[in-house]
Parts: sequence; C-alpha cells; structure tokens
Amino acid sequence: MKVLITAGGTSERIDQVRSITNHSSGRLGKAIAEAFLTHPSVTIDYVTTQPAVKPSDSERLTFHLIESTQELLDTFERLMQEKSYDAIIHSMAVSDFTPAFSLSEQQLAERLSKESLTPDSLSSWLEATEQSVSKEAKISSDTDYLVLTLKKTPKIIRSLRQWQPKATIVGFKLLVDVSKEQLLEVAKKSLITNQTDYILANDLTQINETRHHGYLLSKNGEVTEAYTKQEIAQCIVSTILK
Amino acid sequence: MKVLITAGGTSERIDQVRSITNHSSGRLGKAIAEAFLTHPSVTIDYVTTQPAVKPSDSERLTFHLIESTQELLDTFERLMQEKSYDAIIHSMAVSDFTPAFSLSEQQLAERLSKESLTPDSLSSWLEATEQSVSKEAKISSDTDYLVLTLKKTPKIIRSLRQWQPKATIVGFKLLVDVSKEQLLEVAKKSLITNQTDYILANDLTQINETRHHGYLLSKNGEVTEAYTKQEIAQCIVSTILK
Repeated sequence: MKVLITAGGTSERIDQVRSITNHSSGRLGKAIAEAFLTHPSVTIDYVTTQPAVKPSDSERLTFHLIESTQELLDTFERLMQEKSYDAIIHSMAVSDFTPAFSLSEQQLAERLSKESLTPDSLSSWLEATEQSVSKEAKISSDTDYLVLTLKKTPKIIRSLRQWQPKATIVGFKLLVDVSKEQLLEVAKKSLITNQTDYILANDLTQINETRHHGYLLSKNGEVTEAYTKQEIAQCIVSTILK
Repeated sequence: MKVLITAGGTSERIDQVRSITNHSSGRLGKAIAEAFLTHPSVTIDYVTTQPAVKPSDSERLTFHLIESTQELLDTFERLMQEKSYDAIIHSMAVSDFTPAFSLSEQQLAERLSKESLTPDSLSSWLEATEQSVSKEAKISSDTDYLVLTLKKTPKIIRSLRQWQPKATIVGFKLLVDVSKEQLLEVAKKSLITNQTDYILANDLTQINETRHHGYLLSKNGEVTEAYTKQEIAQCIVSTILK
C-alpha cells in the first residue's frame, strides 16, 4: 500500500532574510506515519519541512523536504506523475498567501502622487503595482510603516482528486476558537469543495502538549472523535486500512 | 566574567497560526558560546529562540528563550536590572518590523470609499487604520490580495550602551550582496549610531555550510578578517578577553 503524507508548515520568502511561516510542529504527521509503519505492507512518501519534527527513519519511508507552497506543488506534481497512491494524508499547514510586493511609506506616497487610490481603482492598482515593483534583495528598514502586500496561493488540495482519482484523500481543517457546530460545518464544506474522502477538523484552542481534540468526518457524514495525536493517527490509519 | 550572548532570529506573530520570521540558524552564536566556555572564568546568559541551534549544556550557561522583539526587550530589561555584564555579543537577527494591521482587498476598498488615499493623507491614514482595525484571531483566506502593514520595532541595540555603560558590546550587521567597501561603511555607521565597541560585518552571499566570511571592526578602526564561524568566534572571544 502506497501512502503520501504531508506534515509541518510552509514558509514564503519575503526577501533573503525574512519569511512568513505557518506554524505547525509536524507532530501529528509524525504520529500518523508511525502508526502506518506498524503495518508491514505500507510504504510512505513523507513531504515535510526542515524545522518540522520527523518520524524515525525507516526503509519504507522516503523524506521529501520542501519550504514554500510552490515547492510543495512541484513535489506533488513530480510524485504524482510517477506513482499512484492508495491514500493521501495532507496534514501540512499550507500558506494561503505569498508576498507579492512591499512598499515603504515613501515609496507608497510616490505612487499615490501619480494616482490616488479609490475603491474602483484598487484591484487594477494592486495588479499593476505587483507587476512594476522590483523584488529587492533585502527590504530597507528605513521606514516607519512597510506595506507588504500578499497574494493568494493556488489551492493545491483541490488538485489532489484530479491527479489521483482513486486515492483515499484525507484533508485537514484548523480553525481558532469556534463552536463544534461551526467547526464541523466549515470542515464539511471544505471536504465537498476539495473532493476529499475525509477531513480532520480541529481547533487550535483544543490542542496542547498532551491533548489534541479532533473530529474525523467522512463524505458519508460519519463523525469520529479523538482526543490525542495518537488517537487521531490510529483513527485515520484504521479508517484507511479497513 | 559575565557574558550575555543573543543568537537565532526573532519571529513576529501575524495571527495565531502565522508569523514573520527572520532567518538565523543560531550556529554562529553557538560557536561563540562554546569558544567562551573553554575559559573557566566565563559565565553566560544565552538568549535565543526555540528553533535555533543551541550550544551544549553547561553549568556556566543559562538559556533564556524568547520569540518576538518585545520578548527580547523584556528579557534584556529584566537581565540588565539584575546584572552587570562584562561583554554583550548581540548576534540575534532581530525583526525590523512587526505586523500592525491587515486588510483584505474588500476591507481596504470599504475604507477607501470613506476616504481615498493621497500622499498627504498617507501617514495619518496608516496611524488611524492601525488604531481602528481589530486584531482578528485568524486572517480570512477569502481575498485575492491581503494588505499586511508592518510597523518598525524599537531599535533595541541602541539601548544596550545606556543599560550597560561599562560592557564591551559587539553588534552584528548582515547585508546581502554588497561590495566590501559598502559593507564596511554601513557597519561603521551602525557601530557609531549604536555605540557598540565592535561590529561583526558579514554578507549573506559569503555564508554557507562550511564558510562564513566576516570582518570584525573596532570603534578605533581596526579590522580583523575571518573565514569560518569558528574563526569569527575565536576572534571575538580573544578580543574580549585580551
């Protein structure tokens, strides 16, 4: 059985010394990989980041290190051309945004002196500015405010079903301090939009060193509850293997 | 002899799941601490971050973990009220900017419909917007562009001389892809502005796994060149101890 697991959080470079990073320790992905590896028939491609906690080495596990959303996309495209996976567990926290351009207060003022910014011109202004601002080596620190404009990254999870029509796909949804009803509703929508078979829904306020409360939703509407990373890992592995 | 060393890179939270991080492995700070610890009279307060590489444990070394520029400031103020240091080696990559507010394209358009943005109104608009935008738990990903506005952090290095008038202070300056002349000029200015005794000037393009090219400038105009992290560490330690 061929399994693809992603874990950790991507980083998007602002310049050569700064990045925007999505927090994710990688510990849940590690628990899932280790639970899978107790089954001798499983081989794993494990896509993760340098700072993430990693599962122990195994002959049946291959690491693929990435940093940015673009590198994740490139790695997925390469792996999925080569292989058919039985299951894809996409637990990585992927950046929703990547830096498009940054302007110091003075640079922004200079641009505004040529064209003031109105609600109607905003969209075209953002696009034109992105095209015309050169990517500097390192941002100058000589400004009180720095306007860093980010643009949406491609929603990679939406391509998984297209690339691997037969795989069992598990997506993840992390929200912050919402009710159980809201969490399950948002997760269900995400499951439908992204055409995954399951989604693990969790809330940051329900996660700490020892506890990790999550719900595994299936596309048929079943909900299984778990309270630790090990329980979540077991729940995902037994669901995939059954 | 009491030494304070900082190492690693600070992170500034954008929201509960994202941060802006300054890249710094902490390996140079580790080398400096280990070079100091070969001298039995030295005790070290070592201020660093969770992801940074750390020197080996020693009874003469105390770790202080921080994340943000504000936490660094708080830790400095606490340590410097308690102690007088003989030397301060401030190798940490400190964030120049911290998130002030973020607006989706739609939120920005709504604000522009009340007041369009012109060069003259820009400064007051930035300040007023910072005051009025609520800090959300997690940024919505439902926007093509996200305008993240950052504001300058306090220049902590400028306070070191005031807090510790008698300490030998070593600052660090990292530039990207400049000439030797430019690097030394910028470093010299920084040394004067920040009232440090020495500054280690280095260029990111001259740093890799095995090599770390740097210049140690003194306030008297002496320049010492080094080619690895170990050489830089030795150079700083022998300069401080002589």
